[in-house]
Amino acid sequence: MTAPRGYRAGGVRAGVKRSGRPDLAAILSDRPTTGAGVFTTNLVRAAPVVVGERLLRATPANLRGIVALSGVANAMTGPEGISDTDAWLVASAEGLGVPTGTLLPACTGVIGPRMPLPKVLAAIPSLRGDLSRGADADARAAQAILTTDTRAKVAALRARLADGTVVHVGGIAKGSGMIAPRMGPPHATTLAFLTTDARATPEGLGELLATESDRTFNMVNVDGDTSTNDTIYLLANGAAGGRAAEKDASFRAAVGGVLESLARQVARDGEGATKLLTVAVHGARDLVQARQAARAVVSSTLVKAALFGADPNVGRIACALGYSGAQLDPDKLDVAIARPRHSVPLIVEGRPAPGLENGGGAKVRDLLHRLSEVTLDVRLHEGTAHATAWGCDLSFSYVQINAAYRT
Amino acid sequence: MTAPRGYRAGGVRAGVKRSGRPDLAAILSDRPTTGAGVFTTNLVRAAPVVVGERLLRATPANLRGIVALSGVANAMTGPEGISDTDAWLVASAEGLGVPTGTLLPACTGVIGPRMPLPKVLAAIPSLRGDLSRGADADARAAQAILTTDTRAKVAALRARLADGTVVHVGGIAKGSGMIAPRMGPPHATTLAFLTTDARATPEGLGELLATESDRTFNMVNVDGDTSTNDTIYLLANGAAGGRAAEKDASFRAAVGGVLESLARQVARDGEGATKLLTVAVHGARDLVQARQAARAVVSSTLVKAALFGADPNVGRIACALGYSGAQLDPDKLDVAIARPRHSVPLIVEGRPAPGLENGGGAKVRDLLHRLSEVTLDVRLHEGTAHATAWGCDLSFSYVQINAAYRT
Repeated sequence: MTAPRGYRAGGVRAGVKRSGRPDLAAILSDRPTTGAGVFTTNLVRAAPVVVGERLLRATPANLRGIVALSGVANAMTGPEGISDTDAWLVASAEGLGVPTGTLLPACTGVIGPRMPLPKVLAAIPSLRGDLSRGADADARAAQAILTTDTRAKVAALRARLADGTVVHVGGIAKGSGMIAPRMGPPHATTLAFLTTDARATPEGLGELLATESDRTFNMVNVDGDTSTNDTIYLLANGAAGGRAAEKDASFRAAVGGVLESLARQVARDGEGATKLLTVAVHGARDLVQARQAARAVVSSTLVKAALFGADPNVGRIACALGYSGAQLDPDKLDVAIARPRHSVPLIVEGRPAPGLENGGGAKVRDLLHRLSEVTLDVRLHEGTAHATAWGCDLSFSYVQINAAYRT
Repeated sequence: MTAPRGYRAGGVRAGVKRSGRPDLAAILSDRPTTGAGVFTTNLVRAAPVVVGERLLRATPANLRGIVALSGVANAMTGPEGISDTDAWLVASAEGLGVPTGTLLPACTGVIGPRMPLPKVLAAIPSLRGDLSRGADADARAAQAILTTDTRAKVAALRARLADGTVVHVGGIAKGSGMIAPRMGPPHATTLAFLTTDARATPEGLGELLATESDRTFNMVNVDGDTSTNDTIYLLANGAAGGRAAEKDASFRAAVGGVLESLARQVARDGEGATKLLTVAVHGARDLVQARQAARAVVSSTLVKAALFGADPNVGRIACALGYSGAQLDPDKLDVAIARPRHSVPLIVEGRPAPGLENGGGAKVRDLLHRLSEVTLDVRLHEGTAHATAWGCDLSFSYVQINAAYRT
């Protein structure tokens, strides 16, 4: 996140998390940035979502950074939640030395309680001291936004624009449970914060973020529950110079690439997950149907549980495709486990691949056991559209984590 | 199911289930019946769904009964699955002594393998011998259609029509996993078979079944996976005499009552379930939104896991309502646990009820621990529409059952 020029990041302990882990992060640009955001489409919206969207609408070209708090969602907190957020932003701007109204907020954690404002404000000086550049700073910020996540999520890419300018795109994310982002333009408790030193207009940045988050974060599903707090921010401070980059193919690919990497990391770290499940659908009639089909398979509770058990239960895959909403001819359906050299067929022309009818297939079972990342290649033979979705298996730990999240 | 006059039922072992439990059932009317059916809307449809729908379209007024097989779904079996079904029906009609083309088929079990026709045909004579009337016969038929279910599901009601005729409605059902029925008219591996001695036209029976299954079975969700095999059949043999009953309010209430009882039993016996969850939504703008809101809460993985842990995690309930698609003002939302004497508030005007903000509420926790059936009363204050949905909690056993269903 500090790979792009002109950004500093940090993360400290404000004492909001009972665990005592870092819970307050900031990303700051040393010059004004343009910004874009996509937010949850849930009608129950956390206070920082309401405030962040309002700020982006008011001053999308004069921002300086992001502050993020983990441990409380600041959702279902009514007008007090809004005023808490406003007070936090005013104090943060002053404490971090940037103008009021230039910081975007984000929160993640338990829904219901108000944010413990005194603790948060008291930690701002140490946060200011913590801000720096480099991989360690990125890691501290990435750590401080986690909740039930087991690992930090960081990605960065570099791109050479058509005019020769070299730009950088960096990002961090969190997300493990309550993950089924359906972010609207302005879409997204998945949090992701991206920075770039490219120059971009707010409108161009907004269109780019909406398009690429639709293809990436909105195709991740861990538990089907679309959070009250989902937020992605993208800041562009122009420190690399050159012209506005939002239409440049290399820049768009870099932003898309960072989003896709972070989205995969979120899916891989889904609550209790032991395996990443990627479903690539080919041959759908149109993009909407390709996405419906891919999402249905990664979202199926039965497919997820079978994957945890390394059970090549092909009927559950066909079943999920059948109710996905995508048009398909069941007698043409092909599904395989994608492998580097040759794929392993699971369904051939609508029938279980030989040996899999009765749950046989010891070889396929062994393969599923060994793989920590399983990619299903689905071919509908109805058209030319394709889409990819990311999810994870459903394990005993998932139930453990969520039956007693707060205790 | 044999409470209505003129029906016999039975269930025997054909050896299809590895467990050796009963797996072949029949319900027979001693005179021609009219019939109606609703079937899964999944595009991947089991052979008995295809054949049953075709039969109902061809001869809805000249039926004699239902044969049902558990252990194999007879789905993803291609043309062979259809011809296996046809052969099974021909042999069953002959063996049970009714005309060819008068029996409706249903299957449930593992997707993929073909039905072991020789075993099934060999069991028809013992099935014929097993057919009888009374609660024991109903129980044997109800047992023989179960898969991962832990208990048989039976219901019966009596109604007095406006013209004085007394009619009976009986039913059995199965369903535990792959339960998210979305049955079309003609909607539903939930199986439910209803019989009545009322007289009814096929069209009237079809409309009644579609309407009442929409309100009952289509509002049950165990795992979100809409099966390839869901089927509800309703047979009316007219043995009670009187006029066509389908418009009679008492008869409609009896059919609806039997369906609702069976639907609740299916939800209560969801795979691994320790608690039945009923969500009653009031004050929605319209029926569609009321159903969306109720379904979202019973379907939420996070709500289900919290319920297993007896955790009054009110944020997850609000979150599910927020993404349900129903219009709501988060600041007006009220949710309570319905109790016989006075309800226990969870959310009051969009905020956690006092004491529940930080996961406190030892009393509420104790209550949730004690209850085996939890009813949430949700008030949206947007209109006058209401709807009820049924589901269950998400337990360790659910994962256990589905990570190794076939092994």
